[in-house]
Amino acid sequence: MIAFEEIQAAAQRLNAVCVRTPLLQNHELDKVAGGTVLLKPECLQVTGSFKLRGAYNRLSQLQPEARASGVVAWSSGNHAQGVAAAAAMLGMHAAIVMPKDAPTAKLANTRKLGGEVISYDRYTGDRERIARDLAEVRGAALVPSYDHEHVIAGQGTVGLEIAEDALELQLPPDQVLIPCGGGGLSGGCSVALKALLPDMDLFPVEPSEFDDTARSFASGLRESVDTSARSICDALQSPRPGKLTFPLLQRHASGILTVTDAEVREAIRFAFKHLKLVVEPGDAVGLAAILAGKLDTRGKTTAIVLSGGNIDVELFARIQAEPK
Amino acid sequence: MIAFEEIQAAAQRLNAVCVRTPLLQNHELDKVAGGTVLLKPECLQVTGSFKLRGAYNRLSQLQPEARASGVVAWSSGNHAQGVAAAAAMLGMHAAIVMPKDAPTAKLANTRKLGGEVISYDRYTGDRERIARDLAEVRGAALVPSYDHEHVIAGQGTVGLEIAEDALELQLPPDQVLIPCGGGGLSGGCSVALKALLPDMDLFPVEPSEFDDTARSFASGLRESVDTSARSICDALQSPRPGKLTFPLLQRHASGILTVTDAEVREAIRFAFKHLKLVVEPGDAVGLAAILAGKLDTRGKTTAIVLSGGNIDVELFARIQAEPK
Repeated sequence: MIAFEEIQAAAQRLNAVCVRTPLLQNHELDKVAGGTVLLKPECLQVTGSFKLRGAYNRLSQLQPEARASGVVAWSSGNHAQGVAAAAAMLGMHAAIVMPKDAPTAKLANTRKLGGEVISYDRYTGDRERIARDLAEVRGAALVPSYDHEHVIAGQGTVGLEIAEDALELQLPPDQVLIPCGGGGLSGGCSVALKALLPDMDLFPVEPSEFDDTARSFASGLRESVDTSARSICDALQSPRPGKLTFPLLQRHASGILTVTDAEVREAIRFAFKHLKLVVEPGDAVGLAAILAGKLDTRGKTTAIVLSGGNIDVELFARIQAEPK
Repeated sequence: MIAFEEIQAAAQRLNAVCVRTPLLQNHELDKVAGGTVLLKPECLQVTGSFKLRGAYNRLSQLQPEARASGVVAWSSGNHAQGVAAAAAMLGMHAAIVMPKDAPTAKLANTRKLGGEVISYDRYTGDRERIARDLAEVRGAALVPSYDHEHVIAGQGTVGLEIAEDALELQLPPDQVLIPCGGGGLSGGCSVALKALLPDMDLFPVEPSEFDDTARSFASGLRESVDTSARSICDALQSPRPGKLTFPLLQRHASGILTVTDAEVREAIRFAFKHLKLVVEPGDAVGLAAILAGKLDTRGKTTAIVLSGGNIDVELFARIQAEPK
């Protein structure tokens, strides 16, 4: 289990390279929720998502002799950019295995940050095996997208900042909603949030087609989704909760929420119209859960993480043009 | 002349109704600028622009007996929403004279906030006369969009917050860029900024087709633009600097910058792609000035106000789809 102290140590490491994103409030959203909503917009983070936090926390702890061999990661796009950016900051080479249908902007940005992109087929290839084989050949260190203590501790700094800033505002949240793919963000945040706000209810949120965490939470075993599953949430398509992350959610979460693609699309429209923020599908699931009434927000203070904003302009425009 | 103390008093009044927008930084923008850029995103403010500040500061100082008769304003859209929201908060009626070609979202939001919208033709009608006549008939108070001390002091709180937060970050700006229509925002901010950062250079920024302030600054007289002038910046189409605002800019500004519509469109794309913020044309002029290299930002700290985000989705999508 990750200790709270590891997240505090990660926060120290990240201090110089990450933006401390603000905790925002929006009147229109408060009206819809019938309560207070605190927004943690990690779309404003360096590389457009929270992923730099975990990547930098892992890479900066590699020994100098390991750094020369570079790192290998697999990612649908946001972790790729986080790893590429962290590697560039530390003067390391980064190779990232990415699905060939990843959003164009994510592929382009990863390359622009100096990352070496290795493509595979999301539905037939085994990204983890490709990455592990490559790492072995090169003697490079792996940077898993969620199932690594240093990665989880780095992502947990999001929860640390939410708790610290909410307490300073004297608005301790009753409940916190966090996007959940493999559980790195939600698992890491759960440790920091429970340490500082023990009475808060944590709800990871995942796409209804990728409800592996919800089903695992119910059964107590790490369940997988079918390979036929599809979702607009490209950032949350992990087939199974992590070995390290799932026990954290079992211990700290009050329940797992799911949202449909249609609910996510509505959230992206709401964010444009009322929040004036660009959020990507996978990272709008917490907002989608509030707007769709997936939990009671009346008279409560609810914090949500908007975890990224790397959406292709064509998809963004198409979603905005849809009738409500 | 507005005194700094009036802006401090306005900040007290606005404390409970406005969001204290954060001061953001973005690595990609810093790279382009070759220096540090501090972003004040008033697009995240209640009603999607800074205009609630001036409107609420004016309305909340009306005597109780004057409140019953309501208020009248004229506006291309953001001031309309600010006045409508402030009136609703204070239980007053608000009538707003708006151009019939104002952005759909601005018209709809003004009505949704409870405002009575009175349409006129932007290029042939005299909005000020229509509003003054209506105010006289109704015995209602006027809420000018810029040329009123209480409005200017309210908008000046944006500058106060920039100075306070930048000093706390130990990043006092060398120069500050502020969108300029009639000069309410830039004039009010100039007082607060010069009080707290006397060595800072202030540059109001206006559309090149509406360069009335630039020409007035050069001649020393309040010059007007031709009625044939057109610009994508619907929020900055004031024909002439204000009587009260212009002397503030004469005293405090180091120069006036102008940007073209094409430069503004590029800024809106940059904000989507890198800042993950939705900004409207008139309120992206400061960002446009930096991206177009209208002033030297290398090695300097430059603060800019992104003053609003109320852009229609069709225009937003069209701008994003344009080749760079």
